[in-house]
Amino acid sequence: MRIASETVADGIREQLFTIGEIPGVLWTPAEGSGPRPLVLIGHGGGQHKKGWEVVSRAFPYVTSCGFAVAAIDAPGTGDRPEHPEIRRLVALIQEREAVGESFRSCPEWPALNETVAAQLIPDWQTTLDALQNLDSVGDSRPVGYYGLSQAGEMGIRLVAAEPRIKAAVLGLVGSDWLIDTAARITTPVEFVLQWDDEGNPRDSVMKLFDALGSTEKTLHANPGGHFRVPSFEIDSSISFFARHLDIPGAASTS
Amino acid sequence: MRIASETVADGIREQLFTIGEIPGVLWTPAEGSGPRPLVLIGHGGGQHKKGWEVVSRAFPYVTSCGFAVAAIDAPGTGDRPEHPEIRRLVALIQEREAVGESFRSCPEWPALNETVAAQLIPDWQTTLDALQNLDSVGDSRPVGYYGLSQAGEMGIRLVAAEPRIKAAVLGLVGSDWLIDTAARITTPVEFVLQWDDEGNPRDSVMKLFDALGSTEKTLHANPGGHFRVPSFEIDSSISFFARHLDIPGAASTS
Repeated sequence: MRIASETVADGIREQLFTIGEIPGVLWTPAEGSGPRPLVLIGHGGGQHKKGWEVVSRAFPYVTSCGFAVAAIDAPGTGDRPEHPEIRRLVALIQEREAVGESFRSCPEWPALNETVAAQLIPDWQTTLDALQNLDSVGDSRPVGYYGLSQAGEMGIRLVAAEPRIKAAVLGLVGSDWLIDTAARITTPVEFVLQWDDEGNPRDSVMKLFDALGSTEKTLHANPGGHFRVPSFEIDSSISFFARHLDIPGAASTS
Repeated sequence: MRIASETVADGIREQLFTIGEIPGVLWTPAEGSGPRPLVLIGHGGGQHKKGWEVVSRAFPYVTSCGFAVAAIDAPGTGDRPEHPEIRRLVALIQEREAVGESFRSCPEWPALNETVAAQLIPDWQTTLDALQNLDSVGDSRPVGYYGLSQAGEMGIRLVAAEPRIKAAVLGLVGSDWLIDTAARITTPVEFVLQWDDEGNPRDSVMKLFDALGSTEKTLHANPGGHFRVPSFEIDSSISFFARHLDIPGAASTS
């Protein structure tokens, strides 16, 4: 792990890092040291690790909860090199969308998700290994994951595969191929649904919520399209993570 | 309005009152005075104004938010006299339930709700009038309503009829005859659904949520039966009311 830069502003330390080929960012409180809960935040399709949806969650998690928060670029985004196969699949999907097709009906859509996941899930796990070696994170406190839309698609796969993740906010995804994966998740989940999501019909999102194997799972549905998740859901996610990650010893009891 | 008793415990002043024939209870912070936001809490069928579901919400609303909180007995419950017609309808419904019918399919079920509402809605409005004359409540701050199950059924009617109510937590109800009433509600609503509610199929609850005319409405769905609303929904309702009622001047701007 190489720290490429470090800046402090508004009480938050921001460290840009690379782990091998993985570009990432770690935010921690500027003051204080020692192990702390960590929240991994995934970004949506076509976005990157410092996009608005990531930063708008990361900053209050650090300042309100004292958590460490990390994000990485998905393959082909941000500071990553071009990924020819992802580029090809996205272009084909965009061509179909331009003539009025839904991305959900494109055969390239599941292929795109498989391609991204094949690299991103191991990259998240490598990143988590490296972050837990830092004094400012450590491996004694629980880990959370936040991701909607493509980061919800990836999150379901990651949370199902990664026992270190003890709580997750997921949603804006209704992929039927994730039903079995969702069923393997047992950690508490807050699942976000947009009532008028153009690309993810509410029934398909509810099927994934229904499939989750978690004893504690809560569905938050709000009116509006895919990009209109209300800002009070950020506050709700703070309460959710505070409840599940902020308890000393929670990592060993849940 | 007659105050029948006043006690103080754990920082909360409890005043039992009657307004004409209406028995009620008002909880306010033991310290401090002057106008404050008010939350009205309805109780479920067969319960009463000091039942657990009421008190478990009322006490944190007072201690965490400094709100005034009031509850009244629905007709035929608590300190109210027997109500022969309600008693007759409930007995008929219980007979049908005893042989395996759902209350939803009983012709007495809508009749029961109409009978309760015909008295309870005006009683709530009379109570609100009287409470807003008290120095400890006043009429300058916004009012909220909390009610699930039968108190959700009544709440949809009350909130639609009562412009002083500026925010409401409702739910655990799926009555198709409330669709038009729900559509008249424009105030922010947090709507609670139990995924495995024996008496209120999730589709029927979602139809009511969908019908709400509110720009801001949020659906919180959790696994389990009718009586298994998780305790973290109490915290969520605190955040919801704090957001909508705790802003000086909110009564005049919303």
